[in-house]
Amino acid sequence: MSDLLAELRAALPDGAVLTDPDLLRGYRRDEADLCAYGMPAVVVRPRSTDEVVAVVRAAAARGVPVVPQGARTGLAGAANAVDGAVVIAMTAMDRIVEIDPVNRIAVVQPGVVNAALARAVAEQGLRYPPDPGSWESSTIGGNVSTNAGGMCCVKYGVTTEYVLGLEVVLASGEVLRTGRRTAKGVAGYDLTRLFVGSEGTLGIITEITVALRPAPEDSLTLVAVFPSTAAAGAAVAAISSAGLTPSLLELLDRTHLGAIEAYQPMGLRTDAKALLLAAADTGARAAAELERIAELCTAAGADEVYAATDAVEAAALLQARRLAHPAMEKFALDAFPGGNGGLIIDDVAVPRTALAALLDGIEKVSAEYGVPIGVVGHAGDGNLHPNIVVDRADPASVERGRLAFDAIMQIALSMGGTCTGEHGVGLLKRDWLAREIGPVGVRVHQAIKAALDPAGLLNPGKVF
Amino acid sequence: MSDLLAELRAALPDGAVLTDPDLLRGYRRDEADLCAYGMPAVVVRPRSTDEVVAVVRAAAARGVPVVPQGARTGLAGAANAVDGAVVIAMTAMDRIVEIDPVNRIAVVQPGVVNAALARAVAEQGLRYPPDPGSWESSTIGGNVSTNAGGMCCVKYGVTTEYVLGLEVVLASGEVLRTGRRTAKGVAGYDLTRLFVGSEGTLGIITEITVALRPAPEDSLTLVAVFPSTAAAGAAVAAISSAGLTPSLLELLDRTHLGAIEAYQPMGLRTDAKALLLAAADTGARAAAELERIAELCTAAGADEVYAATDAVEAAALLQARRLAHPAMEKFALDAFPGGNGGLIIDDVAVPRTALAALLDGIEKVSAEYGVPIGVVGHAGDGNLHPNIVVDRADPASVERGRLAFDAIMQIALSMGGTCTGEHGVGLLKRDWLAREIGPVGVRVHQAIKAALDPAGLLNPGKVF
Repeated sequence: MSDLLAELRAALPDGAVLTDPDLLRGYRRDEADLCAYGMPAVVVRPRSTDEVVAVVRAAAARGVPVVPQGARTGLAGAANAVDGAVVIAMTAMDRIVEIDPVNRIAVVQPGVVNAALARAVAEQGLRYPPDPGSWESSTIGGNVSTNAGGMCCVKYGVTTEYVLGLEVVLASGEVLRTGRRTAKGVAGYDLTRLFVGSEGTLGIITEITVALRPAPEDSLTLVAVFPSTAAAGAAVAAISSAGLTPSLLELLDRTHLGAIEAYQPMGLRTDAKALLLAAADTGARAAAELERIAELCTAAGADEVYAATDAVEAAALLQARRLAHPAMEKFALDAFPGGNGGLIIDDVAVPRTALAALLDGIEKVSAEYGVPIGVVGHAGDGNLHPNIVVDRADPASVERGRLAFDAIMQIALSMGGTCTGEHGVGLLKRDWLAREIGPVGVRVHQAIKAALDPAGLLNPGKVF
Repeated sequence: MSDLLAELRAALPDGAVLTDPDLLRGYRRDEADLCAYGMPAVVVRPRSTDEVVAVVRAAAARGVPVVPQGARTGLAGAANAVDGAVVIAMTAMDRIVEIDPVNRIAVVQPGVVNAALARAVAEQGLRYPPDPGSWESSTIGGNVSTNAGGMCCVKYGVTTEYVLGLEVVLASGEVLRTGRRTAKGVAGYDLTRLFVGSEGTLGIITEITVALRPAPEDSLTLVAVFPSTAAAGAAVAAISSAGLTPSLLELLDRTHLGAIEAYQPMGLRTDAKALLLAAADTGARAAAELERIAELCTAAGADEVYAATDAVEAAALLQARRLAHPAMEKFALDAFPGGNGGLIIDDVAVPRTALAALLDGIEKVSAEYGVPIGVVGHAGDGNLHPNIVVDRADPASVERGRLAFDAIMQIALSMGGTCTGEHGVGLLKRDWLAREIGPVGVRVHQAIKAALDPAGLLNPGKVF
């Protein structure tokens, strides 16, 4: 180990090799609850691809595992350290290398924060759509590694739709360039998208070329208040069925409405059983689209439908939605004495037609296992986050939460859904991935992993 | 071999195992000129996944190569047989299994013809956007295997954007299911997109789940006539730079205009050096968008800009564009005595800003090598098809054509482009793929191929 440290210190600048245990502790885990994590032997903060190569080669030569990390905002434990690992913290590689407004691409280092890129391209009349809840702190490298989603996905798709090319340091220390800078290209296997969402298990991403879109047109926003979650689910199916393409279609249940109002009063109707937040952004057509969405919400049983009167009100509604995660964390924390409340965050996605049935199923699971479950999510995509509230100090409560978590995934899979719509597999859902993709799928994953990382050093134990 | 035939005959229904040399000859090659092809030992026409499994197992047990084919309309030789191979013709698996209008997905067997799917979903108010030139005859399985493009891609993207999940028979005979039926999902590696565009080298696709869109809104179409190809290229860059998103932006050069008029008079201005065909389809905004496109064309030097006055005229313009390929083939055929004229079809893509320079470069290559080159393509994507006219009876002419083909790819790569925007690699561009992706990229391709097909039996010799 001292030999490894000496090699790392020789290859990296002063201050880029951390070994102080107090510092290392901060690099042990991401934001997923209930996932195992270890203590890294060393954390390195490289500033260039060459430095990443040096780190990977030094670790590989000694059979030491390598765990890449972005901002550690992940919700599945994919960035958790294993004992004795070299953690490569990519946050110091945070340069926007290029923005090309005519070809609508940007080239960035992996440590660039999502919001920093979004704001930089906005200054040039462009948009980088993927907007995970963590966008103010999570990095593009982390977003790419987990194929992050967000609220825009219902119309604009997830991260992978915007990744044109990558530079990746392989387990061998070789530098691979994938993809292209052109709008179209089909040269060879789609290695770019093999690395997107591979959660650091196949290589260390050191540069990313993303596609941009023209800046969004003005959007209009509405809120529909429902007397039942099932009615809200039916409204989503009706909107999809009518061929509408809202630019945002989010659901908040009563638990979340209450949690948000307690966290920061936003004037939400806390008596509602569910609320849908919808937007349309096709400029001149937005008003007509939103009117149609309002009609369909009313037809599905909405008590009240109201449109934001201006951009300020629309922004406030979006802000309320963005508060759902911290507000629910606070709600959970306060739900049990001693601040021991915690959340198990689920992330299932089902066909849109199954949304109402899934919401129903979640209510039953909550009753059956005796755990409060709040539901929030990207209803337009059929992607929900059931947030299960447990008392971390009480093993029985945690166990009931775990069982509820499993029961919800079982329901989603039985509906033709997936165990993860956008958070990824990490450690949290390894067993569920295996169930979802079956033994042949697992064998193919193993074969590809072995082809690219035969010694199994890159982010070991994650995904499968 | 007789033993293999007996096993195939036992596993497949009567008439599904072809050995008559006269029939086999029809399965030797796709539409790519100048690519090697062999004589298959047998052609099978399976009707189910189980039959495909039986064929793959029978061939693998004997080390016999397997070459999958769709409609053989490919332009890179990817479907060409090798001597002694089992050709699996997938065209008999042509069932649309399901169309789900609310979740906007369809499930199809690989032999479904693109136009058949497009028409079937249109009846339900939906759209399957990918529209390769061959759409009336090519199959979805072939489209997926080559990641086919088309005219809609400038706004709606290529085939891979619409593939949600696959069923694939692996070289081992195991059946793999990838992907999902949900709008979102990030469970494990993106195996779906690894198979998309892999040209039959990793597995035999037996079922495809595709995403659909709402039916297109009314579109408006215009034509701009340019005194130089460079001016047309500049107009494309200006349209992209202005943040416009035409639903179609196609270029035809003078050679193609003449060829089309000779093939079927469409009233095109054959005195023009280049013509841009543009459409906008965002309903109420289409008129404003198209007006802006017209202004930018005029500013870039267009002699004349005119809008189609109605849907009939717009359809006629599209039809003229669709005639470019057969018209150019006829033009080539007649260009040399004895009907020996042929085309070498290129498919480069460059950043949109480089389009004018690429057009310039192609003109110089044509002059330097003394070969006529017509250019047509998806200008809005920076994806051009330089069509090189050669005399197949004259080895010197073919050689000059080959050199021109290489010179054009060299220019595209030097501009940050790719050797194939949408036709794929096949046999035609293997050398160029290696140049484009470099030795590390080739090694990663080989490692993945070896992981999934260790004996190298699936479509051997293709892509890399």
